[in-house]
Parts: sequence; structure tokens; C-alpha cells
Amino acid sequence: MSIIYVIDIAGTFAFAISGALVAIRKKFDVFGVLIIAFVTAVGGGMTRDVLINAHPINWIGDINYIWIILTAVVVTFLFRSKIAPLRKTMFLFDTIGISVFTLIGVQKGLSFDLHPFVALVMGMSSAVMGGVIRDVLTNEIPLIFHREIYASACLAGGMVYLLLHPLNINEDLLFVISASIIVVIRTIAVQYKLELPRIKKDVFGK
Amino acid sequence: MSIIYVIDIAGTFAFAISGALVAIRKKFDVFGVLIIAFVTAVGGGMTRDVLINAHPINWIGDINYIWIILTAVVVTFLFRSKIAPLRKTMFLFDTIGISVFTLIGVQKGLSFDLHPFVALVMGMSSAVMGGVIRDVLTNEIPLIFHREIYASACLAGGMVYLLLHPLNINEDLLFVISASIIVVIRTIAVQYKLELPRIKKDVFGK
Amino acid sequence: MSIIYVIDIAGTFAFAISGALVAIRKKFDVFGVLIIAFVTAVGGGMTRDVLINAHPINWIGDINYIWIILTAVVVTFLFRSKIAPLRKTMFLFDTIGISVFTLIGVQKGLSFDLHPFVALVMGMSSAVMGGVIRDVLTNEIPLIFHREIYASACLAGGMVYLLLHPLNINEDLLFVISASIIVVIRTIAVQYKLELPRIKKDVFGK
Repeated sequence: MSIIYVIDIAGTFAFAISGALVAIRKKFDVFGVLIIAFVTAVGGGMTRDVLINAHPINWIGDINYIWIILTAVVVTFLFRSKIAPLRKTMFLFDTIGISVFTLIGVQKGLSFDLHPFVALVMGMSSAVMGGVIRDVLTNEIPLIFHREIYASACLAGGMVYLLLHPLNINEDLLFVISASIIVVIRTIAVQYKLELPRIKKDVFGK
Repeated sequence: MSIIYVIDIAGTFAFAISGALVAIRKKFDVFGVLIIAFVTAVGGGMTRDVLINAHPINWIGDINYIWIILTAVVVTFLFRSKIAPLRKTMFLFDTIGISVFTLIGVQKGLSFDLHPFVALVMGMSSAVMGGVIRDVLTNEIPLIFHREIYASACLAGGMVYLLLHPLNINEDLLFVISASIIVVIRTIAVQYKLELPRIKKDVFGK
Repeated sequence: MSIIYVIDIAGTFAFAISGALVAIRKKFDVFGVLIIAFVTAVGGGMTRDVLINAHPINWIGDINYIWIILTAVVVTFLFRSKIAPLRKTMFLFDTIGISVFTLIGVQKGLSFDLHPFVALVMGMSSAVMGGVIRDVLTNEIPLIFHREIYASACLAGGMVYLLLHPLNINEDLLFVISASIIVVIRTIAVQYKLELPRIKKDVFGK
């Protein structure tokens, strides 16, 4: 579990930086940047924990989240001109982040005896709701609704976890396998600009 | 209670379709359509349950919600060119949906020993919050704030329920009476384009 | 505690009026005005209570909130041409409101044995989340992210409370001292148009 905790913290750090960069771009003040970094980083787990009644919720039960986010915001302000161009590094962090968040969410859902499909929804909420809240607060249509393969990668990884779970594979190994699937799918999707299908010509004549 | 459950499921189905149609119109991808359908359908009951601490919340405690929503999304994709023009049918479904959601909310509020007015707010939340979340996520001002009589119909039906409740009328009968009032008020309002009053000339010179 | 309760009610009243004025300006109907007034007034405490699992949440546990908000909405409709120009009075009410909400939030957080920093976040949530929800529902970027010193004043007052708390000062006195700091900081900030720093030239060449 300790390796997973480390990756969880790394994912939180990456999400906080990505939130801070968005807020800086929107010309928010220091405080606005801090709030957006915060909700981006912990919004997913917070949503999950409120919905499944898992109190204390993520960042209330573990003060490290607040420290990590404060650190990420300071780092972003100090090194923003260096961080922003690091698209590939940021993409890697972010992708590892969603893969870990997804599986932590699925595991937590199962540990609360939820139906596997509900656990799957909890995994995806953990991964995507931070970004959704960030986008709602910055008055954007959430990226996840019209961007590249993202939530679907989480879905695939979560389903693999659920399918292999009854086989009594070592828990950490299963975690790593499923997380890798998310990372691989998303990386390939972005590399080849794959997108989910959508209805191009709509039924309303618009 | 079983008839009410059937209508609840029908209302959930109708709400999911209406959410899916909005998301398709906004050119969301398959996943975005699924999420919008989901929050539109269960967002009201979910908000109510989180606020009154009724765990497991609606769709976590009953896996049927997820099946119904998945079905509704598939149906919408397959038959969208046939569904979209069915404005009257959709309107009927939607109206039955809000009437049932309102009264289920009020009943649940009362069963949690809430003040009748708080139960009324819970009824209205159940009916309108799904649409509000849908509109927030699609970056629109929630329709309910500036459209035809909608929440007020729910309010009226909920109040009738609360007023008649102490009379020991048969619970199912009372449910049907109050729900009918919501359906009738909304139908008349839409038929005659009735709107709630609003301040036309504002006090800010704009 | 009774004086604090009175100020809490006064702050709720002020927040409800400010929400109602925004909704009227946006040409919402009567019902939309009521909802916006409601979420502006109780949204902060509601968010806090859901996150820390303090049930019944603020307005569910105390029916007075609903009465106060209804009164505020009626007063706003009746006297809007007189209230809207009273900028200084409204500002005073609003400022007293956030100062009281902040400290009630911090106190509640501490009484739930939260880490002092988490209690501080709860204080600020109590003060600002009502306005954030109002802005999200009216499709605006929340003011707090790009306006004058606001949340930072709450932060300062909350920190003073936390620092002096271990000294066993009389609880009411400590409350008044910390609240005054918030009022003073915000008033000075607005008077001299102080703003938090923000990054002017961004790193994305925009």
C-alpha cells in the first residue's frame, strides 16, 4: 500500500499543478489559484467520499494533501515558465494520476461493499471529478465531455481490475496491471489523436 | 409502493433521455453523453440524499438506476432521430418524472422527521437538481431560473401533499392526487405560456 | 453564543439579499430569485457541514434559516429600489456576514476535532462557498477568484483565532477580535482598492 500512497501523493501534486496553471492562465489572483489547485487535486476523491459516506473524506482525514497542494502551488508560481512547456512530463504525471485515482476509487468502493459497477463509477469519479469541478469553477464546459479518450481509459482499467479481482492475484500486482492499462490506452489515444465517437450532424438541424 | 417505484423508474428513464439529447446537441462524445444523462437522471435524488444523510444514496443503493440510464442512453443513440421530434411525449414523461420525484422527495424528507418545509425543499430538490447539475455542467444558466412554471408546480403539489397528509388519506391516493396537481399545473402553464413574474426593469439602470 | 447567533442570522439575511439582487439583475423569475438567495445564504455552511459530516446540516437543523431567507427575498422585492443604492450598508452587512461565517466555521471545525488547518479551510468555505455556488449557478466565474481581498481577509481572521485559541482567552472575546480583523482588513482593502497579486503576463504567450 505504501507505494500506492506515494503515487497517490504524486498524482495529487500533478493535478494541483495542472489546476494552478489553468488558474494562472485565467488571471486569477493568488487565492483563486490556490482554490483551483485544491479542488482539481482533491475534488475527485472528495466527491467519491461524500457520495459513499466515507468520513473523514480524503483531505480531511490526511493533512498531507493540504501540504502537497500548497507545495505544488508554490512550485508552480516559482517555476511556471519552466513547468508550462514541459507538456510531456505534465502529461505523464497527469496520466499516472488518473490511473492511480481510478484504482484507489474502485478499491475503496469495493471495500465499502458496493456493487462492482458502482465501485467502477466511484473509480471514475475519483479520476475525473477534480477536473470537472475545476472546469465548472472556471466557467468552461468540462474538457472530459468533448476531448480525447480519458474517462474511457479509466473505465477500461477499472473493468480489468474488477474482472481479475476474483482470481486472487496479488493486490499490488493487480493494481499495477490495471493502472498500466489506463496509462497505455490514454498514451496511445493521445499519440494517435483517437477520439470517442460523437454524433456529428445532430437531430435538431443545428 | 410498487406503482410508485415503476413511475420512479419511468421518470428516471425520461430524465436520462432528456439529458442525453442535450449532450448530443452539445456535440459531447459518447462518454460525455453518458455522464450528462446520468446526472440529469439521478442528480436530484442524489443531492437530496447527501443533504439529509440518507445513505446509501439513491443510485448507490439500487443498481437498477444504472441499468435504466444505460438503457436510456442506448435508446437515445439508436432512435434519436425519432425521439427528438416527440416533444409532446417527452414533455409528458418529463412532467410525470418531476411530479413523482417531488413527492418521493417530500415523503423521504418526512420519513427522516424533517420539518415539513424542509421536506418540501427536499421534494423540489429531487425534481429540479438533476436539471440544474446538467445545465451547470453544460455551461448554461439553469433553465429552471428563467423558464416557464416548473419548480412552482412542484412546490404546489408538494404543499398539497403536506396539507392533506395529516388527514390520514390513503398514502397512494394522496400521492396520486398531489402528483396530478403538478402535472396539471405544468401542462396548463406550458399550454398557455404562463410564466412567473420577474422584475423587467431592474434597479441598476441596465 | 446568543450574540453570535444573532449576527449569524443577520449575515444570512445580508447574504440572501445580495443573492436576490444578483438574480433580479439577471432577470430570473421569482422562483429563481428565491433559489439564488437561498444558496447564497446557506451554501457556505451547507458545504462545510456536508464535508465534515455534521448532520443535520445548517438549514435542515434550524428552520429559522428558511424564514430569514424568505423574509429577505420579500424585503428585496418590496424595497429593491431603496436597497440597491445602499452600497455601503450592504457592504457592511456582507462583511460582517463573512467574518461571522468564517469564525463559526473554524469553531465548528475545531469542535469536530479537525486539524487546525482543516478547520481554517472550513471557516473559509463557510464564508465563500455561498457566493461561489451563486456565481456557478448564474454562469459567472466566481468573483472571489479575481476580485479584491476577500477570502484572504477570512484567512487572516481565522488564523488569528487559531493562534490565540490555545491562550484560553474568553471564547466570545476571541470571536469578536478575530471577526474585527476580517472586517478591518476587507474594509481597508476595498477603501484603498488593494488586490492580491496575480501573474499579469502569462507563460502561454496569451
